[in-house]
Amino acid sequence: MKALVVEAEWAPREGYPLTLRERDQRRAIIGSQVWRHPTWQVAERSTPEVTKPDEVLVRVRACGVCGADVHMWETDPDGYLLLAYRTRMPLCIGHEFCGEVAEVGSAVSAVQVGEAVAIEGMGCCGRCRACKRGLVNCCPDGEDLGFTRDGGAAEYVLAREAQCCSLESLRDRCSEEKLFEIGAMIEPTSVVYHGMFVRAEGVRPGDDVAVFGCGPIGLAAVALARAAGAAAVIAVDTQAERRDLARSCGAGLALDPAVDDIVGEVMHATRGRGAGTIVEASGAGRAVFPHIDRCLDFGAQVVVLGVDPRPAPIDLVAYQAKAARIYGSLGHLGGGFDAAIDLHARGLIDMSAIVTGRVALEDGVAAIERTARRVDAKVLIIP
Amino acid sequence: MKALVVEAEWAPREGYPLTLRERDQRRAIIGSQVWRHPTWQVAERSTPEVTKPDEVLVRVRACGVCGADVHMWETDPDGYLLLAYRTRMPLCIGHEFCGEVAEVGSAVSAVQVGEAVAIEGMGCCGRCRACKRGLVNCCPDGEDLGFTRDGGAAEYVLAREAQCCSLESLRDRCSEEKLFEIGAMIEPTSVVYHGMFVRAEGVRPGDDVAVFGCGPIGLAAVALARAAGAAAVIAVDTQAERRDLARSCGAGLALDPAVDDIVGEVMHATRGRGAGTIVEASGAGRAVFPHIDRCLDFGAQVVVLGVDPRPAPIDLVAYQAKAARIYGSLGHLGGGFDAAIDLHARGLIDMSAIVTGRVALEDGVAAIERTARRVDAKVLIIP
Amino acid sequence: MKALVVEAEWAPREGYPLTLRERDQRRAIIGSQVWRHPTWQVAERSTPEVTKPDEVLVRVRACGVCGADVHMWETDPDGYLLLAYRTRMPLCIGHEFCGEVAEVGSAVSAVQVGEAVAIEGMGCCGRCRACKRGLVNCCPDGEDLGFTRDGGAAEYVLAREAQCCSLESLRDRCSEEKLFEIGAMIEPTSVVYHGMFVRAEGVRPGDDVAVFGCGPIGLAAVALARAAGAAAVIAVDTQAERRDLARSCGAGLALDPAVDDIVGEVMHATRGRGAGTIVEASGAGRAVFPHIDRCLDFGAQVVVLGVDPRPAPIDLVAYQAKAARIYGSLGHLGGGFDAAIDLHARGLIDMSAIVTGRVALEDGVAAIERTARRVDAKVLIIP
Amino acid sequence: MKALVVEAEWAPREGYPLTLRERDQRRAIIGSQVWRHPTWQVAERSTPEVTKPDEVLVRVRACGVCGADVHMWETDPDGYLLLAYRTRMPLCIGHEFCGEVAEVGSAVSAVQVGEAVAIEGMGCCGRCRACKRGLVNCCPDGEDLGFTRDGGAAEYVLAREAQCCSLESLRDRCSEEKLFEIGAMIEPTSVVYHGMFVRAEGVRPGDDVAVFGCGPIGLAAVALARAAGAAAVIAVDTQAERRDLARSCGAGLALDPAVDDIVGEVMHATRGRGAGTIVEASGAGRAVFPHIDRCLDFGAQVVVLGVDPRPAPIDLVAYQAKAARIYGSLGHLGGGFDAAIDLHARGLIDMSAIVTGRVALEDGVAAIERTARRVDAKVLIIP
Repeated sequence: MKALVVEAEWAPREGYPLTLRERDQRRAIIGSQVWRHPTWQVAERSTPEVTKPDEVLVRVRACGVCGADVHMWETDPDGYLLLAYRTRMPLCIGHEFCGEVAEVGSAVSAVQVGEAVAIEGMGCCGRCRACKRGLVNCCPDGEDLGFTRDGGAAEYVLAREAQCCSLESLRDRCSEEKLFEIGAMIEPTSVVYHGMFVRAEGVRPGDDVAVFGCGPIGLAAVALARAAGAAAVIAVDTQAERRDLARSCGAGLALDPAVDDIVGEVMHATRGRGAGTIVEASGAGRAVFPHIDRCLDFGAQVVVLGVDPRPAPIDLVAYQAKAARIYGSLGHLGGGFDAAIDLHARGLIDMSAIVTGRVALEDGVAAIERTARRVDAKVLIIP
Repeated sequence: MKALVVEAEWAPREGYPLTLRERDQRRAIIGSQVWRHPTWQVAERSTPEVTKPDEVLVRVRACGVCGADVHMWETDPDGYLLLAYRTRMPLCIGHEFCGEVAEVGSAVSAVQVGEAVAIEGMGCCGRCRACKRGLVNCCPDGEDLGFTRDGGAAEYVLAREAQCCSLESLRDRCSEEKLFEIGAMIEPTSVVYHGMFVRAEGVRPGDDVAVFGCGPIGLAAVALARAAGAAAVIAVDTQAERRDLARSCGAGLALDPAVDDIVGEVMHATRGRGAGTIVEASGAGRAVFPHIDRCLDFGAQVVVLGVDPRPAPIDLVAYQAKAARIYGSLGHLGGGFDAAIDLHARGLIDMSAIVTGRVALEDGVAAIERTARRVDAKVLIIP
Repeated sequence: MKALVVEAEWAPREGYPLTLRERDQRRAIIGSQVWRHPTWQVAERSTPEVTKPDEVLVRVRACGVCGADVHMWETDPDGYLLLAYRTRMPLCIGHEFCGEVAEVGSAVSAVQVGEAVAIEGMGCCGRCRACKRGLVNCCPDGEDLGFTRDGGAAEYVLAREAQCCSLESLRDRCSEEKLFEIGAMIEPTSVVYHGMFVRAEGVRPGDDVAVFGCGPIGLAAVALARAAGAAAVIAVDTQAERRDLARSCGAGLALDPAVDDIVGEVMHATRGRGAGTIVEASGAGRAVFPHIDRCLDFGAQVVVLGVDPRPAPIDLVAYQAKAARIYGSLGHLGGGFDAAIDLHARGLIDMSAIVTGRVALEDGVAAIERTARRVDAKVLIIP
Repeated sequence: MKALVVEAEWAPREGYPLTLRERDQRRAIIGSQVWRHPTWQVAERSTPEVTKPDEVLVRVRACGVCGADVHMWETDPDGYLLLAYRTRMPLCIGHEFCGEVAEVGSAVSAVQVGEAVAIEGMGCCGRCRACKRGLVNCCPDGEDLGFTRDGGAAEYVLAREAQCCSLESLRDRCSEEKLFEIGAMIEPTSVVYHGMFVRAEGVRPGDDVAVFGCGPIGLAAVALARAAGAAAVIAVDTQAERRDLARSCGAGLALDPAVDDIVGEVMHATRGRGAGTIVEASGAGRAVFPHIDRCLDFGAQVVVLGVDPRPAPIDLVAYQAKAARIYGSLGHLGGGFDAAIDLHARGLIDMSAIVTGRVALEDGVAAIERTARRVDAKVLIIP
């Protein structure tokens, strides 16, 4: 089968505390400390086979490209990946994908051959301290499709029964093509759902919400805020195309930091109160926190979803005066897949609307390059 | 001016620990322990006057009749009121009301004469232990319009500036008549908002919600769940008219306990999971908890809003096995008025749709009698 | 090796919805619906062997007898077990145990041969909906030592590396005998910790706490409340011996419902406020909730740990008026083992003080009989 | 009577949006934007008189000097106060104080003449949006003794009944001198209690806690963490004297950032896990957050109590990876006074141990100067 594969040189940085397990398994805990000089290609690989009773072979129908994928393409001046996450190489990338069940193991009962499924590809061990405390997205031992195991930018992927989330409830609402485009959007939507509604405290009907950054994560935040009955939903992005998408996802106001008075507009839209929920999805904390700090309502929550390796300057006195708090979040486990599928099945959100590019798997490398230019909202790879 | 007035005999039950303050102020902490033989009439009273700088005189335009009002009409075999709440008599009743500002005190700046306002009539002192802990609805010292001070079943009411919540944002959406009908529904909607979204943990988009009891409180729970993006919204009531209203408020399923298998239907509608949020709004805990106990999803929350003086039999093992919890809630303070008005202004809910009766103030006693028959959803008194 | 073994007849009750998996694996989801006529004996069994890389063979040094074990001894009029939990038979019982590591699998690095360990014997799969939501104690697929796999009332037990919690930090504080007595108390202490501090909201320094029922669960609640800096700690039990133990665990007041005015005493001890945290550990909800309902402070939490299959009559209006809530809890996963061991290592609690009986493994059946008489606090089986 | 009085010039900065109310009442919302060139003196003032039924005249016995007081002494290059809080001038300062009741209004029943009381001097209105939402410490309308009304650095203070918290429960434990020293420490202890246990999520028995900054706020955090049953309690301060006080308040480890490897030591003390609760009490966010960011356990909470007007650089990726969160907190309302008094009455904490200076009221200005040198822990003014 064809697959979009990245390979890199194993070169742990001096001083990096490599564990035995990392060395033996060639599985870096912090990718950017270990992998250098990545090379990308669409390659021929042997199609995976179902060998365990709970395995499911999925024929991929759509796979989104994520900023994390781009961070395996982009490197720092020393040639190391930008991605800090755990990784094993060579790797077939892709963690935002869906497809049809092609074959099932002997014990599989939850899905059947032919069924449309989105794949909840993060793993958690169920045995470590993080898992027992319920912080399953922090599990250091899980295996993640697209990071430590082969992912969805390929014709086929091997998943486990428990990772398969049926998309059949969408059949009546949309064409098969759209069904799989939605299917590829379930993962990023779940990341946002988890941050806003599981890690943080959720959005209540009538709450005011501001979202900084309108890439796919920010756009999902806009759509979920709207679905939750938010009152004012204010989006902020530097690009006009993304502001347009934000409006179509439900933002009542889409601001351009280059020309708009962000704080003044947020205050006006919230009748002088400030926003009760603020989502940071820009990955540019340095630029946006000076705004965020002055948009806080009493008891506000800031949910940090964008990834920015540089420290953000935060005016903590504002958070003290407003009894506000900041939640960091990563990962998609925790109910988001179910919720995201159900919200689409009921027509309450439609994240397929932000797909701005479709690229054949043969041209997978181009999909990465294109996403790296950061003009699209979401580019899908279609096998 | 005309007002709907209840008077009763001060007759503290034997053994009731009457406080000095209760005796001196003729203000019972537990009305049902003190007041006997109520009499009702529409009487002529002197119109209240603005004497303090932050007072606002409101010309009432609509006032809902609540179960609590009926509990001052109905009595037990000894002739005592059923209402356990704090009360002073004689009393002009009515706590679900709105109107136009007729006159303002010298320091009032938040509202102006002619402005349409709903009145957040519960008080909290800001000084007691409950208030300092943020449990403002538990404040034992607050004065409540319609209970310890004259309320809205009258031509005029005296309120304070901080109690006036502008309805002007509704002007563009609806006729003046409808504006004031919505205005009278803000209070009961806020009671539900407070229970579901402030006391308990809220409803997330994609959550499944079951509501037991479809009087005004249950119907507002249905509408708010729908506004919050709930997936399945299942309503339960014994009366066909109320089940119809539940459907029109957004319930996808409206069950009749006399003929439907409640637990089976809830399980089916939630794909075997059970409901994550269950609202008890029937005031008949004895009848509904045997159902509720078997409809719990993992981590479910039960929000108790209906008032039932008889103990409910609860199978606690079910709550242990499901890591579930039960929240008691009363009162409307805590952001609900703002949210309820905003949700109406944005067209996300319309609680005026459950108004099934309109009675002139002159016939106010009939409005109480009619509500006591429990066939209506909401009866409004129109001065 | 010797082991305390229970066997029973597989006889699913008529109407019980037996699943295929239950039938094929002889693993009942609700033991009391399936297993009849239990027989108990101390039998000779083959010593388990380490065959997987992460397995650990533990030589048991002490194993507590729990009410759940007794519920496999006691039967209803039809001869069925009282235990509703999942179970496989024949079974070597015992889930509150500790010992020394006798042998480790090839991949084990966290513990070594000779190390003293308590065993966190509940399992969670890490893949199901409950696990992904962090409700690991609700996982329906986990395997539990002492319920679905052979437990600790034996000379040896096979556990997994991740289940072994080192007790070595206790070595300096106490004799080896006491070390293992503490070790056997870690599991029940963790059950209480999980209920009070993970499921519910914890106890803050200066909070007032009331505990109903002073068996091992209630006594651990008393000790943990005291360790958390509680102000008033009030215990309630019908037996004088248990009230004495409650005092020695830190209760400032130990009440006898037969002679004391429970509500009056709680109100007096809390300066008229009521208790902010109430732990139900009696398993007699019918008797204690009429007291609990009248002991609630504003915002109080009731943590239900005792298991009582009969519905409890609860006056929900009290919970509404006080903005109170009820949390159900079962299970020990979630950080409790670490905390319980650490609190003992620092001398902040000593649950070995409630061990009132020690019985040799040969006499294991007598230990069950003795616990069934409910006069002891905790009986240990010593292999 | 004698009083320590600060006066300043009313000189709103250009561009500061002065409100009408600020101008009319000479009550700045942000003191540092309005007041310039402060002058301090111990002056003769008329003793306040009880004129309202709920007023209480308190003869002050001890009054602590706080960093906030020093921020009215210190000025920026333009001569403006450093204190950003609301203030009215001229002002008798002092908000950490206690004394004896000298006279009571006609309606006062909670305290009596001669009773020792600490004064909960912050006010909240009970009517604004912050109060109704339970965020009483954010109330913009409250009057605060020592900021907008005359405070405790004086012979007498006028308070309200609801602000008086009895210290009589301490009588049996200590001398009268010590009683009043403890009494003056109740306010700062309550600020910490509110931040750690009301705003944030509290400390559970067995949790690991790190405290950055060992002035009075940090020392109270150490003592409260210890009282809550914390396992490792690690304090960090640049000054040896304060590290010694931290040890005596209960820190197991007191680190010097000049010589110690903070992150390495915290990781070692927490067995490689990191701290579950981190308190920032240094007011030097720029220096400490680079440490804090690397000391986070899974699910950690950072409670910000120190006031630092400069933005702190925060590595948000660390908070995302660890599912951590940051809580801002200010103020003392919310149950802290009761808890702090009770913890002293039970001997669980003793904050009088950090009093390092006692200055007569006549020398009150010297007490401010001395505190400004930041070598003391707590300096008391003794009228």
